[in-house]
Amino acid sequence: MAENKGVTPQSEDYSRWYTDVVKMADLADNAPVRGCMIIKPYGYELWENIKTALDMRFKATGHRNAYFPLFIPMSFIEKEAEHVEGFAPELAVVTHGGGKELEEPLVVRPTSETVIGHAFSDWIQSYRDLPLLINQWANVVRWEKRPRLFLRTTEFLWQEGHTAHATEEEAVAETLQMLDIYADMAINECAIPVIKGLKSPQEKFAGAADSYAIEAMMGNTWALQSGTSHFLGQNFAKAFNIQYLDEANEQQYAWTTSWGVSTRMVGGVVMAHGDDKGLRLPPHIAPYQVVITPIWKTPEDEESVFRFTNLVADQLRSAGIRIHVDKRAGLSPGFKFNDWEMRGVPVRLEIGPRDVEGNSVMSARRDVPGRDGKQILPLEGLEMAIAELLENIQSSMLETATKFRDERLHEVETYEELKALVGQGWGLMWHCGSPECEDKIKEDTKATSRCFPLDENPEWNPVGEKCAVCGKPAFGRAYFSRAY
Amino acid sequence: MAENKGVTPQSEDYSRWYTDVVKMADLADNAPVRGCMIIKPYGYELWENIKTALDMRFKATGHRNAYFPLFIPMSFIEKEAEHVEGFAPELAVVTHGGGKELEEPLVVRPTSETVIGHAFSDWIQSYRDLPLLINQWANVVRWEKRPRLFLRTTEFLWQEGHTAHATEEEAVAETLQMLDIYADMAINECAIPVIKGLKSPQEKFAGAADSYAIEAMMGNTWALQSGTSHFLGQNFAKAFNIQYLDEANEQQYAWTTSWGVSTRMVGGVVMAHGDDKGLRLPPHIAPYQVVITPIWKTPEDEESVFRFTNLVADQLRSAGIRIHVDKRAGLSPGFKFNDWEMRGVPVRLEIGPRDVEGNSVMSARRDVPGRDGKQILPLEGLEMAIAELLENIQSSMLETATKFRDERLHEVETYEELKALVGQGWGLMWHCGSPECEDKIKEDTKATSRCFPLDENPEWNPVGEKCAVCGKPAFGRAYFSRAY
Repeated sequence: MAENKGVTPQSEDYSRWYTDVVKMADLADNAPVRGCMIIKPYGYELWENIKTALDMRFKATGHRNAYFPLFIPMSFIEKEAEHVEGFAPELAVVTHGGGKELEEPLVVRPTSETVIGHAFSDWIQSYRDLPLLINQWANVVRWEKRPRLFLRTTEFLWQEGHTAHATEEEAVAETLQMLDIYADMAINECAIPVIKGLKSPQEKFAGAADSYAIEAMMGNTWALQSGTSHFLGQNFAKAFNIQYLDEANEQQYAWTTSWGVSTRMVGGVVMAHGDDKGLRLPPHIAPYQVVITPIWKTPEDEESVFRFTNLVADQLRSAGIRIHVDKRAGLSPGFKFNDWEMRGVPVRLEIGPRDVEGNSVMSARRDVPGRDGKQILPLEGLEMAIAELLENIQSSMLETATKFRDERLHEVETYEELKALVGQGWGLMWHCGSPECEDKIKEDTKATSRCFPLDENPEWNPVGEKCAVCGKPAFGRAYFSRAY
Repeated sequence: MAENKGVTPQSEDYSRWYTDVVKMADLADNAPVRGCMIIKPYGYELWENIKTALDMRFKATGHRNAYFPLFIPMSFIEKEAEHVEGFAPELAVVTHGGGKELEEPLVVRPTSETVIGHAFSDWIQSYRDLPLLINQWANVVRWEKRPRLFLRTTEFLWQEGHTAHATEEEAVAETLQMLDIYADMAINECAIPVIKGLKSPQEKFAGAADSYAIEAMMGNTWALQSGTSHFLGQNFAKAFNIQYLDEANEQQYAWTTSWGVSTRMVGGVVMAHGDDKGLRLPPHIAPYQVVITPIWKTPEDEESVFRFTNLVADQLRSAGIRIHVDKRAGLSPGFKFNDWEMRGVPVRLEIGPRDVEGNSVMSARRDVPGRDGKQILPLEGLEMAIAELLENIQSSMLETATKFRDERLHEVETYEELKALVGQGWGLMWHCGSPECEDKIKEDTKATSRCFPLDENPEWNPVGEKCAVCGKPAFGRAYFSRAY
């Protein structure tokens, strides 16, 4: 049996490395329709775990799931001026249904502010109906010219939260709360140390008053916007007439928010942790936290090894650990090891005749190669040892990713410094926030403003600070980087 | 505060009763695009519980979730002759994307046999890759001329399972296993005593060799096909070239199946259990199993009642019971009782000052009106008492529905008997299975063949039995009824 063909090394071609890993780790594949993807079981299970982690957090903060239609009348999209301008070039349009040409073309939702705004205007009558806290899990379509699996696909899966509030303060607080929830999920489940920040006017959502995002650093130092939370002001409330009677019996426009995380996050996990052997998955979201590889030669060994393997498997499974037993015949242990390393399973347990004799198993960490990652674990208390090992791996992966990122975050004083940095890290630079400066930076360096990090900007428009590009008063310090 | 306006009585207009309940119980509403619906949080939570019940069962039988694209090239749909004939009139077609007219129009998936068949032909190489057991949770679109919320909507949510097997026997076994799982879910979670059976050639899925279904009786005796499981033979394997190398190293076509349950099931729950007061939800799938209504007049009472209510709520919540506390001010207890009856919550707990004093709560069953459904329950051990009560309600609802159904199932010897029965029950009648007889029955009575129940047909084509309509040899006994 041939050894696994490896992936293209990151150092050789990062982009090809990414595609190789996504395909060879069986996460996803291209669909027959260009720009669309097929999410294979292993990739979908990874998404399901991210989904569960988010859904729990949404419900714990009082949000309820609902479902709104896939099709939106074209006229709805046109009601909010910035919104239609932003989305028009990306729309998929249904013109025929049930064998007839439609009177009004239907848009396949690129996002649902409009149709949900329409529903909210119906659901909300009085201040007693507020806040209204809704989320939906759905597919959306944005026509993509340069598709990349998970990162940019014409159809993708996501959740979109939509909320309405009586006051601006509450809506802003909700926007920031959801940003915090996204960061918490990214950091503590995906082991990705994201940075929370405000998007520039150029980079904000079409129709938002303010957009916030979590930005993650990938293995090539590029940034990935991994989740966004938008304060929509009264823009959609006015476009869709979302009004409520306040306590003084007067009509008021509501304040709304929207926020989303998509299957793009899966691509983020690949690029934040992967190496030249393939995926490395954080235990909290790994479809299989542990893979057990029985090793045998003789039929007698096979029997005793399998009996012991089943024992171990049951013990771990009852403790709630997600395991997989690789019983495939005709494949060498080496082939299997490579295979599961490619798939990024955090812990591998090897069980051979000697382990059966010793009443123990040999464990190997995906994140620590070679002997250093190996240890013999006794059967007794194995589930506790594994649970602890998984938590160690989880925090160690976050630590590694944080160290990698922190070494590549730089405060830059001048535009020249930024130019020298792009491609090797992110530059935190005073920035006026104007589209003109952003365009210039992008043209010169291909970098874009990622966000004005909240932690680094105690105040906006600080007196005396100047944009490193145009010299006009700075709005704040923004990170600039190449980005997906 | 005005009392709740009730729903149209079932006896007056069953169809309006249904729509009233769906809307007044806050399950769903019409979307701006005709034929589509908005599933409101309460309706979506009901669907989520059905979903979880199914997903558990799929995973326990070795199926894995994946996700396939929304858009299917028109040419794919055309590859299986019966399939395109069946679905062509219902397709929604995307002709424009990204601001341009597309070279090949894209179909919004009405079901995914074609695109999944295409993927399977790629995933399957050898007998070692079989069986391949895949499920997807997705939205699908079938243009609907006479839409009804949940029952028939242009877009609906569902799961569609797709599997491939090495042998015909295995594929048939899978088809029947999934039918059993659907029946188990319907009976034990939704408290709907469905009948499992084979669909007639006229009623089978476009492209299937054999279709099976679970058929449920609604409150007006009409049937609702609530889930289908299809043995696809090698039809799609041949259309999409799903081949594998067998152990003798020869190319073979795989045998495939597909099976689905949709949001239609929610409509089934409404009509199988609802009454003139509104919904009645089986505890296993009810979004709220228990609603707690604190009752108070004075501010002192309010304080002590709320303190006690929180105690009760915490106790039940920690026991894993899904509860909701109705703390709304300014609404009378009577209004709230009606409101929660409309929403079909299985158990209502009333907590007033006297209950606080007595260290107990007053419970009322939704399924047993008036005094008979009420009892005083002490705080100590309340979670156990409630858990038991919920199980009682669950089995009692199944019993009621089974009795209702069994009284309306009739063996009919002659076509005249069937004619007299239609509208008041289902007739089990010898049937040849020909489209001609079915068309005649439909024209005469508006009834359609629901299924050849497996339990009532120990053998097909039994010697000597004749179709009650045409007199030719019967294929078996089929239920005929009006249906949704």
